[in-house]
Amino acid sequence: MSLTHFDKSGAAHMVDVSDKAVTSRIATATGYIKMAPQTLDIIMKGDAKKGDVIGIARLAGIMGAKKTADLIPLCHPLPISKVAVDMSCDPDLPGVRIAATLKTTGQTGIEMEALTAVSTAALTVYDMVKAVDKTMEIGGIRVTLKDGGKSGRFEAK
Amino acid sequence: MSLTHFDKSGAAHMVDVSDKAVTSRIATATGYIKMAPQTLDIIMKGDAKKGDVIGIARLAGIMGAKKTADLIPLCHPLPISKVAVDMSCDPDLPGVRIAATLKTTGQTGIEMEALTAVSTAALTVYDMVKAVDKTMEIGGIRVTLKDGGKSGRFEAK
Amino acid sequence: MSLTHFDKSGAAHMVDVSDKAVTSRIATATGYIKMAPQTLDIIMKGDAKKGDVIGIARLAGIMGAKKTADLIPLCHPLPISKVAVDMSCDPDLPGVRIAATLKTTGQTGIEMEALTAVSTAALTVYDMVKAVDKTMEIGGIRVTLKDGGKSGRFEAK
Amino acid sequence: MSLTHFDKSGAAHMVDVSDKAVTSRIATATGYIKMAPQTLDIIMKGDAKKGDVIGIARLAGIMGAKKTADLIPLCHPLPISKVAVDMSCDPDLPGVRIAATLKTTGQTGIEMEALTAVSTAALTVYDMVKAVDKTMEIGGIRVTLKDGGKSGRFEAK
Amino acid sequence: MSLTHFDKSGAAHMVDVSDKAVTSRIATATGYIKMAPQTLDIIMKGDAKKGDVIGIARLAGIMGAKKTADLIPLCHPLPISKVAVDMSCDPDLPGVRIAATLKTTGQTGIEMEALTAVSTAALTVYDMVKAVDKTMEIGGIRVTLKDGGKSGRFEAK
Amino acid sequence: MSLTHFDKSGAAHMVDVSDKAVTSRIATATGYIKMAPQTLDIIMKGDAKKGDVIGIARLAGIMGAKKTADLIPLCHPLPISKVAVDMSCDPDLPGVRIAATLKTTGQTGIEMEALTAVSTAALTVYDMVKAVDKTMEIGGIRVTLKDGGKSGRFEAK
Repeated sequence: MSLTHFDKSGAAHMVDVSDKAVTSRIATATGYIKMAPQTLDIIMKGDAKKGDVIGIARLAGIMGAKKTADLIPLCHPLPISKVAVDMSCDPDLPGVRIAATLKTTGQTGIEMEALTAVSTAALTVYDMVKAVDKTMEIGGIRVTLKDGGKSGRFEAK
Repeated sequence: MSLTHFDKSGAAHMVDVSDKAVTSRIATATGYIKMAPQTLDIIMKGDAKKGDVIGIARLAGIMGAKKTADLIPLCHPLPISKVAVDMSCDPDLPGVRIAATLKTTGQTGIEMEALTAVSTAALTVYDMVKAVDKTMEIGGIRVTLKDGGKSGRFEAK
Repeated sequence: MSLTHFDKSGAAHMVDVSDKAVTSRIATATGYIKMAPQTLDIIMKGDAKKGDVIGIARLAGIMGAKKTADLIPLCHPLPISKVAVDMSCDPDLPGVRIAATLKTTGQTGIEMEALTAVSTAALTVYDMVKAVDKTMEIGGIRVTLKDGGKSGRFEAK
Repeated sequence: MSLTHFDKSGAAHMVDVSDKAVTSRIATATGYIKMAPQTLDIIMKGDAKKGDVIGIARLAGIMGAKKTADLIPLCHPLPISKVAVDMSCDPDLPGVRIAATLKTTGQTGIEMEALTAVSTAALTVYDMVKAVDKTMEIGGIRVTLKDGGKSGRFEAK
Repeated sequence: MSLTHFDKSGAAHMVDVSDKAVTSRIATATGYIKMAPQTLDIIMKGDAKKGDVIGIARLAGIMGAKKTADLIPLCHPLPISKVAVDMSCDPDLPGVRIAATLKTTGQTGIEMEALTAVSTAALTVYDMVKAVDKTMEIGGIRVTLKDGGKSGRFEAK
Repeated sequence: MSLTHFDKSGAAHMVDVSDKAVTSRIATATGYIKMAPQTLDIIMKGDAKKGDVIGIARLAGIMGAKKTADLIPLCHPLPISKVAVDMSCDPDLPGVRIAATLKTTGQTGIEMEALTAVSTAALTVYDMVKAVDKTMEIGGIRVTLKDGGKSGRFEAK
């Protein structure tokens, strides 16, 4: 089996999608950032009045999605038509869970944008609370839904 | 305990570092991308001749580090003086392990740049092999070393 | 009345425009930068030979329009199909008047791009003459025309 | 009097600051966005739970400051060491007042970054409430404080 | 004959392409970087194991193509659907020959993106070997093929 | 002889410059764009009134220099302290000659920024006159002066 991002000689290229149909596409990616319980407490007490970590990370995730083609070398630029980043504090983790859902009407899938939104939101949480917790860990970043396009619907178990 | 990225009223700001000393700083972050064993096999067979996934992801990690202040809202721009991204295929994971070490001579720490390098490298691996494996997962992204600056040396256990 | 940029829980998102029709859209925004009369004189004497403040600010406005989705967090990226930035010296202001007209064929309006073009052109004038005038003021930035799309034609009085 | 951004022949250049002292510099810029009273009401009712227009615009202003050298053609890149964007709802305007204070330790002033922060914050407010008010106006953008560097302290009256 | 990038008064603008047909377009640009024979030897010995100059420059060319509208002031942003950058070591030059082929489905030609890919790839080769050769020269950058769109097929002799 | 941009195992990295002295550095790069004599005539007749190709390309070159670390993968970000882009019409070429001189006070040389300024200015000329001339060629891009730093003064013959 060979990878589409390389031609026959092994040279990297941006895959030719010019003959692919322009279809409605959607993808959801999820992930989390784990932290000490007292770190999560500080975040959960925050709001627009006391320091809204969640709101800022959500916004960073949305803006990060728009930079995907800049960050990922062989990624096609895509006209993003929707970004929603859902963030929830989970005391059982303990930490913050992140889910990003994106839509496009384009010639290739939008899961890289969803993954980039999740990563950027997680990194932004990290940045804002790193002064009080040096042992946080970002993980579980994966695609849970992908639909539209030739390869059909994919849902993670 | 309060977060430095917010002022007394809870408004987000970019922290004033103008009175902090300009010191030599270093940080290392690590992470991994897990995949099916046969996906890792495809990557391990690759090289400059057959599709160098590792080399491209390493480069994306280095370039991603330079975009950190663009991606993370309250992050200071820093004059990066070194970026090394180490990537290794680990059949026991199975997947690819990533470690990024960065240096700066500046007024604030460089761990966000190290974490961004790791994240971007992992996302780039994902992008290049996603056609053959839809169940990969990025995780374990954390800081393992941070030194220089007032808060002293930190090493993860 | 609620704002479209927030979901029911109040979380910011990039509005889903994937079901909106792709239509031809146009927007014009205007604004000005006020300055001392002698500052305007210096600008008016300039040309490609003696320092073309107006030409440089116009170009910055055009380039700024292309960065709108980068600057405005919840703004959709749009395929800009035309940018014209009109700049005129007005001794009665005294200062420089700016008008930007943009077109797109897309799923959402292009007035943010027009406003960003005007703002960037005004900031660029400021930058180039700030050494001789510290009391300039940028103002009057508003949309004067918006057409195409579901909400119909809007013209400022 | 001639403008420093042009050489003797009138060609634009980025001024040589290599012989200027590296000093601590500060600048404050202010501005506002005027709107209908009922539009301001919607914003004032918002918070992290119901749609935090002010928090998002503040963040956009901070991030916009970091893009100044990208937007303004002849502006030097500067190592920003602090950004604070203060936003307040003023029912007498009616609208939102914005003040941005920035610091750097560098070879040239930081007022363009302060002005860009204010402009970007104002544009972001515009974007988020434009669906309910098409007649908003951005204005009053000017420098109110500049200090550090050879030209000494400037305070607007 | 007049240039399309200027209006009747001579002011620069981004040309209105909103009435042009959306067609399939292709362009190829070529160029080279000349160097000392021993410098080329070092590059030719390189691969993913010993320092893959060619692979890195190819990737930089692909990523550079995506930044074209950012770099070239009056260039329209285009949805790139394919980028291939072909690089070959030519001992007769001596140096590296570069050819970039791009596709889009859009309202204007994609030759500027092809030229930018070639330039960026050449600059990247320069950067990586400049420590051993200070007399390299980049040249021969031109369009060899352009097709799609109203002006018809162009092939360089 | 080995290349500094690769470590012992051949992996690319951004070279560690943290122990290099911060010194005053300068570099000049030159290049040209060749065209048909009648194309050059159109450019030479232009000015701020009739379409200032030269002024726009000069500005693009200055702005392009600021994007060097974004374009060239292993290039360090540098605090540019001066950019001058000199452009002259040469009927003997026939075409436009470009020279860019840059300064920095930093830990590594600034010749990549000078080369990027020249390339971007040349590409911008190309873009603006491509409608009347499809056979232009960009070439002669090389470093003519480099000084400051450990390796001493270099002047091209």
